Amino acid sequence: MHVGKVVGNVWATKKEESLEGLRFLLVQPFTVDGPPSTEVIVAADPIGAGIGETVIVAHGRAARHAIGRGHDVGFQVAVVAIVDQLALGDGEPFEL
Amino acid sequence: MHVGKVVGNVWATKKEESLEGLRFLLVQPFTVDGPPSTEVIVAADPIGAGIGETVIVAHGRAARHAIGRGHDVGFQVAVVAIVDQLALGDGEPFEL
Amino acid sequence: MHVGKVVGNVWATKKEESLEGLRFLLVQPFTVDGPPSTEVIVAADPIGAGIGETVIVAHGRAARHAIGRGHDVGFQVAVVAIVDQLALGDGEPFEL
Amino acid sequence: MHVGKVVGNVWATKKEESLEGLRFLLVQPFTVDGPPSTEVIVAADPIGAGIGETVIVAHGRAARHAIGRGHDVGFQVAVVAIVDQLALGDGEPFEL
Amino acid sequence: MHVGKVVGNVWATKKEESLEGLRFLLVQPFTVDGPPSTEVIVAADPIGAGIGETVIVAHGRAARHAIGRGHDVGFQVAVVAIVDQLALGDGEPFEL
Repeated sequence: MHVGKVVGNVWATKKEESLEGLRFLLVQPFTVDGPPSTEVIVAADPIGAGIGETVIVAHGRAARHAIGRGHDVGFQVAVVAIVDQLALGDGEPFEL
Repeated sequence: MHVGKVVGNVWATKKEESLEGLRFLLVQPFTVDGPPSTEVIVAADPIGAGIGETVIVAHGRAARHAIGRGHDVGFQVAVVAIVDQLALGDGEPFEL
Repeated sequence: MHVGKVVGNVWATKKEESLEGLRFLLVQPFTVDGPPSTEVIVAADPIGAGIGETVIVAHGRAARHAIGRGHDVGFQVAVVAIVDQLALGDGEPFEL
Repeated sequence: MHVGKVVGNVWATKKEESLEGLRFLLVQPFTVDGPPSTEVIVAADPIGAGIGETVIVAHGRAARHAIGRGHDVGFQVAVVAIVDQLALGDGEPFEL
Repeated sequence: MHVGKVVGNVWATKKEESLEGLRFLLVQPFTVDGPPSTEVIVAADPIGAGIGETVIVAHGRAARHAIGRGHDVGFQVAVVAIVDQLALGDGEPFEL
């Protein structure tokens, strides 16, 4: 999953200590030609996305880079961009 | 799969020796707008989650970091946080 | 997902700074013997693919290599080839 | 896929040379609340699992560690534990 | 996806330069107890598999090892073995 909509927030008091102070969002994958995905993932959010925004989500080393706490960190999924325009096929771009 | 509910425990006597003494949980992915996932994954649990709790699960290097036995370890999925509040859309947060 | 069709573009103003100036495409996975995939992924495009083209998509280190900005970069999915011919089974290759 | 049942064996004469002498099993993912998975994966088996046993499967570096041939090896999925007891919800553990 | 059948070939003229001269195959995942997968993946083929053969596919570092061009290469999925016998459950092995 690499693009989706922010559909919620989660809060965790008990967690791996390297995650202290990180925001965690629920992101629902973007789909075409079908029903919305029932899958939801958690992503750390170092850039400040809000509910309803469409975001690009990175995994692994790229996500750790974006989180910005080095590579000894206890999560590997992060929001790295907030999508403001999207175009499908030859259609006009539309604002999100 | 990055967020789900703890639905069971597994015990393994015969295993890769670096896994000795680790707890293993069965975690069922969280879904929205649809039936529960039929998928179940196994996660090592270094933080003490219980049956019915919602947890954040890390993979790869992040999971090895959370397991805390260095990077020469025979598993790469781990519980890294126990979710205590969750909010969908603009709704109020609710306790889990 | 490793092969698919370019179905759209996304633009993001607010993003992890290492992604500045990168093009991002929406890619829909290629399927056989069934309906088109409803999944869509985002891939960085360092080679200039266009809407409707079939592309090979790399992940992780291979994608970072293709992006060409070193390994401290905030995304790990990239278009690495534009497919111009494809053959299924013993059939003749056809142009895409 | 991280837990499943051993449903078969595969043999390959022509293979990447670092895989010489490794056993390969077919493993079907464990599911709950639904039909069995139709997906099957291949895992190298360095610990001697048998048909019908439930196993934990590792990926990536963890699997290479378990295979025990260093990190220049041509496969990255391995059986790392044989599950002998499993409990769902608050139920009693049962033998597998 | 780690085991599947070779169902096609793809050719790409425009590609990341480290991929020059590599063969690319379309591989359809092996399934049990259900319809064939509609998913198809691309794998680099350094060992010479043919249409209709069942192959084991590696990902990430293992695939780069099998490709044999070092780790600065623009793809991370590769055929690493050609399966010649397969047995399901306690059945007799059969040739593929």
